[in-house]
Amino acid sequence: MSKENTKATLIETGLRVFLERGYNNSGIDTILNAAGVPKGSFYYYFAIKEEFGLQVLDRFAEEIQANFSRCLGDTSLPPLDRLKRYFEEVCVRLESRQCRNGCLVGNLSQEMADQSEAFRGRLEAIFEGWRDRYAECLKIAQDTGDLPPDMDVRVVAEFCLSSWQGAILRAKAARSIEPIRTFITILFGHVLQAPEKTLLMSQRNEVSG
Amino acid sequence: MSKENTKATLIETGLRVFLERGYNNSGIDTILNAAGVPKGSFYYYFAIKEEFGLQVLDRFAEEIQANFSRCLGDTSLPPLDRLKRYFEEVCVRLESRQCRNGCLVGNLSQEMADQSEAFRGRLEAIFEGWRDRYAECLKIAQDTGDLPPDMDVRVVAEFCLSSWQGAILRAKAARSIEPIRTFITILFGHVLQAPEKTLLMSQRNEVSG
Repeated sequence: MSKENTKATLIETGLRVFLERGYNNSGIDTILNAAGVPKGSFYYYFAIKEEFGLQVLDRFAEEIQANFSRCLGDTSLPPLDRLKRYFEEVCVRLESRQCRNGCLVGNLSQEMADQSEAFRGRLEAIFEGWRDRYAECLKIAQDTGDLPPDMDVRVVAEFCLSSWQGAILRAKAARSIEPIRTFITILFGHVLQAPEKTLLMSQRNEVSG
Repeated sequence: MSKENTKATLIETGLRVFLERGYNNSGIDTILNAAGVPKGSFYYYFAIKEEFGLQVLDRFAEEIQANFSRCLGDTSLPPLDRLKRYFEEVCVRLESRQCRNGCLVGNLSQEMADQSEAFRGRLEAIFEGWRDRYAECLKIAQDTGDLPPDMDVRVVAEFCLSSWQGAILRAKAARSIEPIRTFITILFGHVLQAPEKTLLMSQRNEVSG
């Protein structure tokens, strides 16, 4: 195996093992055995386990960014349908694995945010990047008239992100895709509403109050 | 220390340590040192660490049930205000700890649901119990006319639960209460809407389509 391949194999294996077993529960030996790489190689590439963990996290985040670009960048769909398609695609992937592994960024936030400031900082930066992608898409929906002009898209993007993470967490404990389907139904049916509904509501509020 | 006290001390200490460090990252020795209890005592009460973990989880769930009963049982408030007060009280408690520890049931769902079927089953049962408490409160709101009569309160209760867990997770990585405040604002501003808004929306839909 070439040097580049060895490093990439370690990171890909780490991604799978951390998703399946968590970070603290995955010893370096477990990863080396799964990757079929001798111990010395690990320390050639990574000074400590944390450095390895952060690179695995970056690898996971890269994959999500590519999915964002593919779904949210598809201008053949209206902006809110792009976001919905993103969630639905992840839904299919999670269901194919019985909702077992969840999201590595969510998992490590629960497990590591309070254990390591290096992890917490990186996790938070990734989450903020995701929130910004959502907000960008919601802003386009607002500009095209699919969301109310007075909606604070950054705040709503944060709600999308945290509720999405919660749905993935619930799906993991329930081992069922239902919490994720519920998230999609209620997000697009109640929160990301067309402006005429909001207008009617505010008119009614003026009349009644 | 009496036998009953020793067991209770171990469970209280386990609750604190698991919240702070996670389950896999907390050895029995760490808990015994923190509790000031000799090792033999641990195995007198608990055959294995998992049995201890499940009892700690039950202890945490009991505390949440007591908070539910106090807030959701307060008939001096309208039903949706009871639920809002519950979320706001937890918000204050989390903020007082810089949002560090999160929710033990959410944390262990991420860490243990895929590692131990005993944990997953117990976590899911606790979550379902919480969802039923939310649904009960939403049903009262529906009966008193504060929610639309055709709303499926069990589905919306599941959304409340998963979005709430997601907000706690995000607060942990962000080390900020903002995701939780956003959750409360959007849940009560967009999802748990008074029925006249929904009525107007459906009238509008009939007219337009």
